[in-house]
Amino acid sequence: MFDLIIRNGQIVSPSGIYHGDIAVEGEQVVCIGKILEGAKQIIDASGCYVMPGLVDAHVHLNCTSWNAVSANDYYHGTVAAALGGVTTFIDFAGQTRGLSMRQSVDTLRSQINGETVIDYGLHVSITDDRPETLNEIEQIIANGIPSFKMFMTYRSHNIMVDDDMMLRICERISSCGGLPGVHAENDAIAGANYARFAADGKLTPKYHALAKPPYVEAEAVNRAIFIANIAQSPLYIYHLTTESSIESVKIAKISHQKVLAETCVHYLFLDRHMLDQPDGVNYICSPPLRDKADQEFLWQAIQEGDIAVLSTDDAAFNASDKRKALGGPIENIPNGLPGIGIRLPVVFTLGVDKKKISLERFVEINCENPARIFGLYPKKGSLQPGSDADIIVIDPQYTVNLNVQSQNMHVDWCQYDGLDVRGFPKFTIARGKIIVSNYKYCGEKGRGNFVPGTIQPEFIEKLFY
Amino acid sequence: MFDLIIRNGQIVSPSGIYHGDIAVEGEQVVCIGKILEGAKQIIDASGCYVMPGLVDAHVHLNCTSWNAVSANDYYHGTVAAALGGVTTFIDFAGQTRGLSMRQSVDTLRSQINGETVIDYGLHVSITDDRPETLNEIEQIIANGIPSFKMFMTYRSHNIMVDDDMMLRICERISSCGGLPGVHAENDAIAGANYARFAADGKLTPKYHALAKPPYVEAEAVNRAIFIANIAQSPLYIYHLTTESSIESVKIAKISHQKVLAETCVHYLFLDRHMLDQPDGVNYICSPPLRDKADQEFLWQAIQEGDIAVLSTDDAAFNASDKRKALGGPIENIPNGLPGIGIRLPVVFTLGVDKKKISLERFVEINCENPARIFGLYPKKGSLQPGSDADIIVIDPQYTVNLNVQSQNMHVDWCQYDGLDVRGFPKFTIARGKIIVSNYKYCGEKGRGNFVPGTIQPEFIEKLFY
Amino acid sequence: MFDLIIRNGQIVSPSGIYHGDIAVEGEQVVCIGKILEGAKQIIDASGCYVMPGLVDAHVHLNCTSWNAVSANDYYHGTVAAALGGVTTFIDFAGQTRGLSMRQSVDTLRSQINGETVIDYGLHVSITDDRPETLNEIEQIIANGIPSFKMFMTYRSHNIMVDDDMMLRICERISSCGGLPGVHAENDAIAGANYARFAADGKLTPKYHALAKPPYVEAEAVNRAIFIANIAQSPLYIYHLTTESSIESVKIAKISHQKVLAETCVHYLFLDRHMLDQPDGVNYICSPPLRDKADQEFLWQAIQEGDIAVLSTDDAAFNASDKRKALGGPIENIPNGLPGIGIRLPVVFTLGVDKKKISLERFVEINCENPARIFGLYPKKGSLQPGSDADIIVIDPQYTVNLNVQSQNMHVDWCQYDGLDVRGFPKFTIARGKIIVSNYKYCGEKGRGNFVPGTIQPEFIEKLFY
Amino acid sequence: MFDLIIRNGQIVSPSGIYHGDIAVEGEQVVCIGKILEGAKQIIDASGCYVMPGLVDAHVHLNCTSWNAVSANDYYHGTVAAALGGVTTFIDFAGQTRGLSMRQSVDTLRSQINGETVIDYGLHVSITDDRPETLNEIEQIIANGIPSFKMFMTYRSHNIMVDDDMMLRICERISSCGGLPGVHAENDAIAGANYARFAADGKLTPKYHALAKPPYVEAEAVNRAIFIANIAQSPLYIYHLTTESSIESVKIAKISHQKVLAETCVHYLFLDRHMLDQPDGVNYICSPPLRDKADQEFLWQAIQEGDIAVLSTDDAAFNASDKRKALGGPIENIPNGLPGIGIRLPVVFTLGVDKKKISLERFVEINCENPARIFGLYPKKGSLQPGSDADIIVIDPQYTVNLNVQSQNMHVDWCQYDGLDVRGFPKFTIARGKIIVSNYKYCGEKGRGNFVPGTIQPEFIEKLFY
Repeated sequence: MFDLIIRNGQIVSPSGIYHGDIAVEGEQVVCIGKILEGAKQIIDASGCYVMPGLVDAHVHLNCTSWNAVSANDYYHGTVAAALGGVTTFIDFAGQTRGLSMRQSVDTLRSQINGETVIDYGLHVSITDDRPETLNEIEQIIANGIPSFKMFMTYRSHNIMVDDDMMLRICERISSCGGLPGVHAENDAIAGANYARFAADGKLTPKYHALAKPPYVEAEAVNRAIFIANIAQSPLYIYHLTTESSIESVKIAKISHQKVLAETCVHYLFLDRHMLDQPDGVNYICSPPLRDKADQEFLWQAIQEGDIAVLSTDDAAFNASDKRKALGGPIENIPNGLPGIGIRLPVVFTLGVDKKKISLERFVEINCENPARIFGLYPKKGSLQPGSDADIIVIDPQYTVNLNVQSQNMHVDWCQYDGLDVRGFPKFTIARGKIIVSNYKYCGEKGRGNFVPGTIQPEFIEKLFY
Repeated sequence: MFDLIIRNGQIVSPSGIYHGDIAVEGEQVVCIGKILEGAKQIIDASGCYVMPGLVDAHVHLNCTSWNAVSANDYYHGTVAAALGGVTTFIDFAGQTRGLSMRQSVDTLRSQINGETVIDYGLHVSITDDRPETLNEIEQIIANGIPSFKMFMTYRSHNIMVDDDMMLRICERISSCGGLPGVHAENDAIAGANYARFAADGKLTPKYHALAKPPYVEAEAVNRAIFIANIAQSPLYIYHLTTESSIESVKIAKISHQKVLAETCVHYLFLDRHMLDQPDGVNYICSPPLRDKADQEFLWQAIQEGDIAVLSTDDAAFNASDKRKALGGPIENIPNGLPGIGIRLPVVFTLGVDKKKISLERFVEINCENPARIFGLYPKKGSLQPGSDADIIVIDPQYTVNLNVQSQNMHVDWCQYDGLDVRGFPKFTIARGKIIVSNYKYCGEKGRGNFVPGTIQPEFIEKLFY
Repeated sequence: MFDLIIRNGQIVSPSGIYHGDIAVEGEQVVCIGKILEGAKQIIDASGCYVMPGLVDAHVHLNCTSWNAVSANDYYHGTVAAALGGVTTFIDFAGQTRGLSMRQSVDTLRSQINGETVIDYGLHVSITDDRPETLNEIEQIIANGIPSFKMFMTYRSHNIMVDDDMMLRICERISSCGGLPGVHAENDAIAGANYARFAADGKLTPKYHALAKPPYVEAEAVNRAIFIANIAQSPLYIYHLTTESSIESVKIAKISHQKVLAETCVHYLFLDRHMLDQPDGVNYICSPPLRDKADQEFLWQAIQEGDIAVLSTDDAAFNASDKRKALGGPIENIPNGLPGIGIRLPVVFTLGVDKKKISLERFVEINCENPARIFGLYPKKGSLQPGSDADIIVIDPQYTVNLNVQSQNMHVDWCQYDGLDVRGFPKFTIARGKIIVSNYKYCGEKGRGNFVPGTIQPEFIEKLFY
Repeated sequence: MFDLIIRNGQIVSPSGIYHGDIAVEGEQVVCIGKILEGAKQIIDASGCYVMPGLVDAHVHLNCTSWNAVSANDYYHGTVAAALGGVTTFIDFAGQTRGLSMRQSVDTLRSQINGETVIDYGLHVSITDDRPETLNEIEQIIANGIPSFKMFMTYRSHNIMVDDDMMLRICERISSCGGLPGVHAENDAIAGANYARFAADGKLTPKYHALAKPPYVEAEAVNRAIFIANIAQSPLYIYHLTTESSIESVKIAKISHQKVLAETCVHYLFLDRHMLDQPDGVNYICSPPLRDKADQEFLWQAIQEGDIAVLSTDDAAFNASDKRKALGGPIENIPNGLPGIGIRLPVVFTLGVDKKKISLERFVEINCENPARIFGLYPKKGSLQPGSDADIIVIDPQYTVNLNVQSQNMHVDWCQYDGLDVRGFPKFTIARGKIIVSNYKYCGEKGRGNFVPGTIQPEFIEKLFY
């Protein structure tokens, strides 16, 4: 007698789709296929897809920045995540320059624990290269945080790393088996553009995109790849958005440099003309939204394997907070869009249904690849005997009209307002426990655990060819 | 109650290795993981690897050529295959120029059926481009033979296709959803070299390799890729062996041309100096054995994904037949090495054990990739619920000293004579039936079926990035 | 007192245009600039351009082929050349397969000597690789014929070299310091296309171009470059016409392979729709005329240095002869266009005047580069003290309406009939002697000499970057 | 009767070497070849090479920096130049940040005029992108200074331009027809390295090279090329020194980006182990000396056309001044080597004589190319009728043992001390006047003029292929 069996689903994996049952015992998947034995609890998945729960590798819950706090806190944000089929998220412990990373990690973990309803991992945003910091890297990685982000911009926020810091940090992280990553934007150019626009009184949202045209990102991507190569280090590129950046990734891959790229949902479906709308301020994020043509390049890069991960970069600032900052310097407007709760239905509807991507590739970029890259695989991101029982069941017939309420997130606006979507999970199971049932949240606050990541090169290798 | 359960194995898939059971019902895998239910028959796989049976995508059993018949006939050859963990082979129906392909297929199938102990698929060796031939392609594909081979050499055997034929045939095959492939050697250069050596009385085996230096293959590979590109056709390259060919494949992949390459076991472990030995004549095969440096390039290409398939090109001519032809024109010496029965232990021992390749990648190139490419996946080459129960169980402790007897093949010599190998399967299960038990063959003559292949682009797509 | 001074011209060289005089003594240029001294003969070049006489590196005068004889014989053809500013031509001594090259050279030289009014060099069209032929190469080169052409097509004319011959010939020529070249068309594909069209009764001129689409050339170019690389030989590509061929040249140059490409005048200005006209048969040449888009690619390749030489491939078959062959197999129609007499005015008018090319680059591709490549520089193709006094004087105001008469060639049709052109030389001076004066020919039959070529690597080197 | 005739020399041009005379009238070359007329003054150049005077496109005479003044002032430096065959130099007018460029230009010109014995051009070192500065660019170019240098390092000297400034400046310069250039070193990395070494007490000269390893330059080169591409601007790279930088230039050229690179004499012959010598401090320059392997890459790049210009970067700080700074922060040690007077003999001896480079290519990179690139051609850098009579006569038999005295420069050390060199000019003629006669200076202080440069795209075009 198993604890839980999901019966008769169409089980989706990167290797294909097949019909079968999945059995759960305790917190783990234990059996897949035709299961004769019974279980304490049965979910009938007839007519439904059964997939690993999504991993969101890039979120900023409860984010305090630009004098605002993002609306998705660790409780409400993870409830929305669960309702949207996400069973693991990876947030950022931001090092305060001059202080230890460990301290930021501990503080953050104490904030998340007790709140989150799903499991989580962490990246560290590393902001200096003091010897103490470099020396701390090995221990941070040993403690299950193998991935780091460096901001190539935001000098004014006192978090930017310059080229020298990037080089030293990449060298150290890679020598310890970790994975450095970058938020790639050229600070000097973006900063000067902001200043020029401000001097000319050009303060409306569209100037955000004009201050950071594609080359602001592309130059930084190109430079980060060059510097990672000097350091003989792998490199993860967060939220890559534009054609020229993809070109740099391709060239790096040809010479077998280990570069991994991520894009985010909004870069696939929204373009910079949203900034011209009356509520344009809401759409401010960095890198900014691009042109429609870039969306096609991103899809092609996903299809050809040049983009490995799809995430949300959830930074759910309320429209009210964003509006408040309007009229002042553009760079003071809170950056970021909500997203943790709606990736699955939005991409299912606008991506899978529109034949932009197969369900198998969907599972790769949303579940398996982020787990592989950040050392959570095969525990997370996959349904194999022994994996965590993080499972979602999707009835593809079920439609939801997206709006501020139905998106489940704790934020006062919705960038897909009015869109009919399919793909919300009927059931979400997290470590063996049903936390969404019949589209209703039924989980337990604080049940989510920190999941230490350990990068295993052989699980990443195959993403490079 | 299942029919068969393999308990407690280390189950190997391209996605990783995990502990578990596999249940079989009738001819199919039905369940994987922790299986509580019992079965009529139980195999204890404790301490053993459990993998999909190997697919050998390139064999010439019972091959009549060069006035000899290869020693591995359909019965003895497939028994050796079974003992060596192979559960599917793909042989070639060679069109007689001027006659219908269908006829060759029917003849061959009638020869194989009733003999083979494992399942098989077919390629067609297509030798002309008469309208009747081109028009027949669609039906051949519809009947489950989606892959074709064209010989770019062997003009004297009356089977060579010239550039025009190659172009027309590629166009037609690809437009029908099939996969053209090439034996790539430049006929004019090889032929002239043979003639020059013959004129000079240079008739010893080493002149075989000198008549076909790496560029004889590389030029043909480069040309075939160019012509496939004209035809906007995918291309499969049989037995690629050398650095410069790999370079052409890489360049083609960069421009997103769909090129798939195979190499064979002997190119990984044997080099052309074997031809200088007293029994050098045995080592004559085409393309010829290369230098040690090429072996490293081939391994790198396997690791980086540029070679997708490992096969044997089994053409098991007896040493006695080979010796007989010695002294005459080199090109009249039977070409080919035995191999169908020993790929698994040889590659396990010299590849996996030597850290040239992981077990996961082993399964990809030996099982899953050939099945994907030739339209047999996920029925063959994979262990998923619904796959054919083609399963092998390997006790990695069990060692065999290879020699003419222990290699199980029906041939009078052994290229790895005296090598201690691990990896022979303790059990081989074919479509649910145990045909090797405790290293002993216990199958049934003629039980193997023809398995129609249907190429599904989405199963091949991911081999291109 | 000099023999001749050309006063007050605008002297054009690849290095620029400057005002000055040129003095000639005997057969040589001896002084350039402001010349105070007088001369026996003075040409007033005020308002005129003064340039080196053109070198036509690719002509077939008096060509017997396809059961016809080209109309520009060595006398009339070279008179037309002189009137068109050409002071050196390079013709082909075609080896009869199985006979010595020397014999063809001697025969041809005896035909040309006594007829030609301008100097000439020779290429050998080499058609076999018998040891006698290979051994003859060194002496042929020593005798001043350093360049060879191999036909990759025309198997039915018994002049085609196959891949093996090409390889051996390239090896030998390059090891002797010579320059192999190719007429690059895939014979198998072209031949089969002709046969298919013939079988379908498709015998009108347009099927010539359809039988030899761009890839027929591009495949052969790609293959020839590959084989030259095996041979570690430089390679000259005669009459390159299409985008994909240029791509292959570019790629070869990137890897520092020494590939030089030529195109011909008609590929720059005429396209394959000429074949649809009532007199379409006249426009049959090989490679065939291409699309307008290819013309732009050719111009770009000229501007970027990827095409080094412009020639005419003059093979002036009369329209009457061409028409006669119409209705039979297309490949039996005489191939080729007239051109030796009109390159200068046509390119001056449609190229220089239309800003496709500067006068400096004009001199490079029409005069200096062919002289450099074929070992005639700085004697030919350049105006330096010591150069042969091969000089033309062009009054850019002088206009001629092109037609059968005014083009000066001994042929019964004109592909630019009705076009107003500028650029015919007012004076042509050949080895110090005025042979065109005030647009009238005034030379001497048989005064032209054979000019031995000696390739000097340092004069070619700079064409590769 | 001409003013001056140089008789019977071997005249060297990029197009070849030929025997002849050169006549001068007033300040210009007027005639080349066999000159029958006499002259007021005759130089017998029998057995000598006659070449255009060298252009030194990169010098810092009278340079005040690092609390020192370079020893070659405008008088002594140009006398040394004349004795070393240089007839034109291009110095830098360094904009003081915040002030107008015009002012720096005027000041500098007033310092040079009255002192220099040879002609000169100017670059502007531009240090800010204030609107006033950008708006001034057009006029600066119109006044004959078309080339600019941006320092990507030396932030502490208050002259560094950041990425945004570089972008804006490139855009403006190129839109006005000028040529932006860079001193390419990554400031952040070099600066941090200096600081780390200083903190560790590592203050010996070798740490200069270790603080600026090749990638410090290569990253900046790569970035500058990327930013020039954004600006759709050509780019001149001053003193490129290392393999990886060449790679970036090659890649840029493949995609037809207009990048021009210069290297300096000392990078061809000196390596970083000079810094380990007792007088190692003398060898401090930026970029630093590299490894021997880089010298071979630089020669190859010169041969393949990827480096277009050879200059000296003369910044002749006295050893005494350099020594004084030793022991303090390395970056405070005066950077630079003397060179303006010895390029010709050093490169003639170690380059031409050693077959690293032909005399023709020597003339290209030392004379013609810098003149072409900076808009001085064909007035400077070439011997054509109409060119300035800047001519040198070299007796290749004449040998000098280099040392502090014989190098003619006003500096207290010599990096080639003891080397026997050939190539010092017997005569140097500047604008028609003999200023070096029989190896003795006989010129006139202040006779040198400012030569306005006007970039003509057609004269640069051919440097790109």
